[in-house]
Amino acid sequence: MPKALQPHPDRALPAGEARELARRIHQSTRALPLLCLHGHVDATLFATDEPFGNPADLLVVPDHYVTRMLISQGVPPDRLGLPRRDGTRTAEPREIWREFCSHWHLFRGTPSRYWLEHEFAEVLGVTVAPSAETADTLYDEISARLAEPQFRPRALLDQFNIEVISTTDAATDDLAPHAKVAADLPGRVIPTFRPDAVVHVDRPGWSDLARQLGELAGTDTTSYAGYLQALRQRRQAFVAAGARATDHGHLSAAAVPLHGATAERIYADALRAEVSADDAAAFAGHMLFQMAAMSAEDGLVMQLHPGVLRDHHAGIYSTYGPDQGHDIPVAAEFTRSLRPVLERFGHVDGFRMVLFTVDETTYSRELAPLAGVYPSVRLGAPWWFLDSPGGMRRFRDLVTETAGFYNTTGFVDDTRAFLSIPARHDLARRIDAGYLANLVLEHRLDEDDAFEVAQDLAYNLARTTYLG
Amino acid sequence: MPKALQPHPDRALPAGEARELARRIHQSTRALPLLCLHGHVDATLFATDEPFGNPADLLVVPDHYVTRMLISQGVPPDRLGLPRRDGTRTAEPREIWREFCSHWHLFRGTPSRYWLEHEFAEVLGVTVAPSAETADTLYDEISARLAEPQFRPRALLDQFNIEVISTTDAATDDLAPHAKVAADLPGRVIPTFRPDAVVHVDRPGWSDLARQLGELAGTDTTSYAGYLQALRQRRQAFVAAGARATDHGHLSAAAVPLHGATAERIYADALRAEVSADDAAAFAGHMLFQMAAMSAEDGLVMQLHPGVLRDHHAGIYSTYGPDQGHDIPVAAEFTRSLRPVLERFGHVDGFRMVLFTVDETTYSRELAPLAGVYPSVRLGAPWWFLDSPGGMRRFRDLVTETAGFYNTTGFVDDTRAFLSIPARHDLARRIDAGYLANLVLEHRLDEDDAFEVAQDLAYNLARTTYLG
Amino acid sequence: MPKALQPHPDRALPAGEARELARRIHQSTRALPLLCLHGHVDATLFATDEPFGNPADLLVVPDHYVTRMLISQGVPPDRLGLPRRDGTRTAEPREIWREFCSHWHLFRGTPSRYWLEHEFAEVLGVTVAPSAETADTLYDEISARLAEPQFRPRALLDQFNIEVISTTDAATDDLAPHAKVAADLPGRVIPTFRPDAVVHVDRPGWSDLARQLGELAGTDTTSYAGYLQALRQRRQAFVAAGARATDHGHLSAAAVPLHGATAERIYADALRAEVSADDAAAFAGHMLFQMAAMSAEDGLVMQLHPGVLRDHHAGIYSTYGPDQGHDIPVAAEFTRSLRPVLERFGHVDGFRMVLFTVDETTYSRELAPLAGVYPSVRLGAPWWFLDSPGGMRRFRDLVTETAGFYNTTGFVDDTRAFLSIPARHDLARRIDAGYLANLVLEHRLDEDDAFEVAQDLAYNLARTTYLG
Repeated sequence: MPKALQPHPDRALPAGEARELARRIHQSTRALPLLCLHGHVDATLFATDEPFGNPADLLVVPDHYVTRMLISQGVPPDRLGLPRRDGTRTAEPREIWREFCSHWHLFRGTPSRYWLEHEFAEVLGVTVAPSAETADTLYDEISARLAEPQFRPRALLDQFNIEVISTTDAATDDLAPHAKVAADLPGRVIPTFRPDAVVHVDRPGWSDLARQLGELAGTDTTSYAGYLQALRQRRQAFVAAGARATDHGHLSAAAVPLHGATAERIYADALRAEVSADDAAAFAGHMLFQMAAMSAEDGLVMQLHPGVLRDHHAGIYSTYGPDQGHDIPVAAEFTRSLRPVLERFGHVDGFRMVLFTVDETTYSRELAPLAGVYPSVRLGAPWWFLDSPGGMRRFRDLVTETAGFYNTTGFVDDTRAFLSIPARHDLARRIDAGYLANLVLEHRLDEDDAFEVAQDLAYNLARTTYLG
Repeated sequence: MPKALQPHPDRALPAGEARELARRIHQSTRALPLLCLHGHVDATLFATDEPFGNPADLLVVPDHYVTRMLISQGVPPDRLGLPRRDGTRTAEPREIWREFCSHWHLFRGTPSRYWLEHEFAEVLGVTVAPSAETADTLYDEISARLAEPQFRPRALLDQFNIEVISTTDAATDDLAPHAKVAADLPGRVIPTFRPDAVVHVDRPGWSDLARQLGELAGTDTTSYAGYLQALRQRRQAFVAAGARATDHGHLSAAAVPLHGATAERIYADALRAEVSADDAAAFAGHMLFQMAAMSAEDGLVMQLHPGVLRDHHAGIYSTYGPDQGHDIPVAAEFTRSLRPVLERFGHVDGFRMVLFTVDETTYSRELAPLAGVYPSVRLGAPWWFLDSPGGMRRFRDLVTETAGFYNTTGFVDDTRAFLSIPARHDLARRIDAGYLANLVLEHRLDEDDAFEVAQDLAYNLARTTYLG
Repeated sequence: MPKALQPHPDRALPAGEARELARRIHQSTRALPLLCLHGHVDATLFATDEPFGNPADLLVVPDHYVTRMLISQGVPPDRLGLPRRDGTRTAEPREIWREFCSHWHLFRGTPSRYWLEHEFAEVLGVTVAPSAETADTLYDEISARLAEPQFRPRALLDQFNIEVISTTDAATDDLAPHAKVAADLPGRVIPTFRPDAVVHVDRPGWSDLARQLGELAGTDTTSYAGYLQALRQRRQAFVAAGARATDHGHLSAAAVPLHGATAERIYADALRAEVSADDAAAFAGHMLFQMAAMSAEDGLVMQLHPGVLRDHHAGIYSTYGPDQGHDIPVAAEFTRSLRPVLERFGHVDGFRMVLFTVDETTYSRELAPLAGVYPSVRLGAPWWFLDSPGGMRRFRDLVTETAGFYNTTGFVDDTRAFLSIPARHDLARRIDAGYLANLVLEHRLDEDDAFEVAQDLAYNLARTTYLG
């Protein structure tokens, strides 16, 4: 007999004495709408509103949390259907799904398992646990469900109680899908300006992007001044399309402005494809500072998440491309790196910077002290590998005493996996409920304050941080 | 009706099964006298014994934990009465107090709130929580109380059960207030020798300080040899005034001796104001080593707390000066940095070094291993941002298994906020009681041992570390 | 009346609601055999099977966890009988033992106390706690016991239920004791190949070792090619003697291959004793890469533990030699350092790398992400200072959510202290039981899964990682 899959109503709440209060706090936030203002779901999903295909292509192939775990235990990427750059893909969806189900035990103790169980039980109505034996049944059952109208992306937006969801879009994106969605669902799906590709001037294909940028903006990007002007105009186009934020993933948080002449020289070198790695890194840091300056003008919230070495394995990258689970964190530094930006804009009214990290050592050492004094700085939710029960608890434990609750953004989901969004918000609300309940039980917080803070963390802080 | 303010008798004790034992352990230490041997209260306070003025100037303006939180949420420094370097100050005390009370919710979950509630309830007899509505009443009530004789500084020394309190004094301080206090309260208020300003030879005004140092010591500080001699003599003057320790705040813990000729050359460059930043940093590290050498001679306990980038924001510094909450930690390093000092003095009888950090990553990696083998090394209490419930728990968790209890100093308060001292010691005793109770409940420590360790952490270890 | 020594049956299990389940989980694993595949016990112990001498020479002198704590509180090394390089030793075993017993309180809260209590009570049948008063009685009692046949090393192998124990052996070890043991106890005591001494070409005595290596391998190590060949042959000799793994302790994890000509040149310089420190470090990193390449060929599991600065105190080193508790961790780095090795071998079938660290900051930031995607990488158990209750809990907390359970090796003891091995395994099983019970109580893991994982962590994972 297959094993039942029944997420417990009290899951992820603290055991023991704190549970009862944690449960009540969680109850008080669970019906609040979801603000998804750091999302990575593609706008096209909502523009076309096509049904999701099969469970493998929905839940396995695009979720690098899932594929990396399977790969780490020896499942070859090709058997998981990872799309090769050359366009080939050998594995059939049903085979991929079997591979996933038969390795279900690997996910014990991981947030992927937690989210997937929530999705299976509460979104897809699945009642048995994945296994080699149940794989085919589940495949058919989920496929059938995904074909129903209430499982279309827009219907799920409503079912999930998502008030606003932002996407992540290149500076060179024309935002056409957003225009289409906005016509039907105004203000519900908004873009986020992510200029990483156009500010890293030594990446392959950069000069093409610089040209595209100019074309879209109607400016001449063969000069550095035209390039800055194009960025400014693209930001305006994003603002017009509803954007509230920018997003920046740099290896280093260093945001050091260069002299204008130096920036011009490096830009010219880059256009001739003669830029050095050091110059390119300096230019990227310079552009972070420029992005801060533009945010101080146009009000877009500046989100920064440094400290990840992308594409750690050259072979995987060349065969399968980026975002295949081979991005590995390195030590991050904020205090010295952000000093130029914060000296200039840290006390400037209307400038808002949200910081994310996968280096937990910076929480109490650098991030909480920075957010605890600079009016412009807020700390984003635990990011990437860290939006897990333990990760979120450590974040509150390491940040709250120095930065308080009100210098954090509340929960920010950060995922490509659309179906996991309710699970992620719900988990964050449970963890915060538990954290608050413990404070109350230790008489470090009044109970009525705990309920108020819970509302703030679940909804209000994301709203005031991003939507003003 | 205003909200009541009533700190719970069990506050900061663990919830659940461990509480009852934690409560008994806490009871066994709560009446012990306070040893405040790393203090930053000004000796003049006790020399003049003037009444404290108003609540804003006592509890808000000088407490950078409080002002930084308010500033981080957009309250301009001027509205908090931060004294400008140009001597202007616009905000009235009552206005400052209103600003503070109306933002009371920001402190939820922070140690500032915890300490202030203790001070309000147990020192000042306040029974309602601060809020926009209660601000004026509280202002008047506290002001009245501060005018009573039992709220004078010396009376509070008794009320707080403070056995000894040390101050922090520049090498160029003449210790006149200490002489005055010592005449009335011998051995109760003692100085600490802090030579930071005279060993950082590239700071503005250094040469004036070097001259003053020579004048006070009666030596000629136009030579490096005279400078060393002056430091030695000033240390003797501090010893004569009852000092038991020195205190060193350097960006880096590096304590690398230079060749004598190099030190002389840099010193001469500095007198001519022609010293490079690198040379000045090397000289500061060299002087740390010299200070260790002198401690090995004169027995002053050497306290070191590296790893803070002071005055992160140039604009705040130029307008308001140092110590305005804009000092931000950076990654610290001890293993390599302290090697020269510890190779020379680490096993020398009578040399005692106490290490503090705001970089928690060094607790288990470097500090506990160092303290766990070098007879000269003790670990100070969690410092600065970290003398909080969570901070102190993590310290014990990360340090005890490698260094044991007896290579730590027990609690050391570290504050300018005189009224918060009992709250800080009491909180530390609660947290240690909880830590010990948990060890007993997990059968990792016998109950009678736990009571003995609690006494050691609350009183005996500070006594043996600093008072011999 | 002397204090009783009675380790509690529930020791190191969580207090409160989780205890009952934790106890049941622990019960389910406590009878499993011990796999000791990262050991440091000397093979001669089992080859000669001589009785252990006296308690001081068994439990104090060779255990640097114990001696470092005593030294840190001012007991001179000579009073602990630390053997001097010059062969002198002044302290008598009974005096050493008294010193240890009279400082028993120093070990409160440390894993040494935990292990020793287990050894006293469960291995040696001691029923009173060490103290100045009980020292002599205990000395006599334990000495008598150690003279009994059932306390001989081989008898204890059985009593401890040790299935396999590995030793750590230099590349230049002739493995003669292993041959002797293998004749009687085939497959029970196996060597581990540790080439550190022969790959660090600037250490005193290296050229003698290089010569010995060649003699043992029957190759000419006056050339770099011959040196590589000798290493390959020695590895084969270890494989033939049953070895399953290699072990590498480098200051840095950097494993960057050099051009062949560069490696040859450095090797030649080293033979002439003219190698620079930088070249020697580069060569050591190059050899790490070569060792990975050879592991990919011969299947030996490659264990790496970087980040410890050995012999921090020159005076202690020159008087007493290495391994006297003065090895202090430094910050470690894996992401960039291991990239060359993992790009080349990380996805190669049959290559297996086990990573250890004493820098806990790398757990969630680097190690779990690496192990969570590279099929070749497993995370070893918390190492050295960290195989303690708190250390092991933090490891699971920081690693599991990203790497899962199945990318860890399960428990690996790492000790010279043979008598402590059952205590260490039992403690690990208790801590894992508690961790799993908490997951179940928070409804983050099913109870039946918890029991299965407990078996895997206690036995199966070590088996599949090391024994295939």
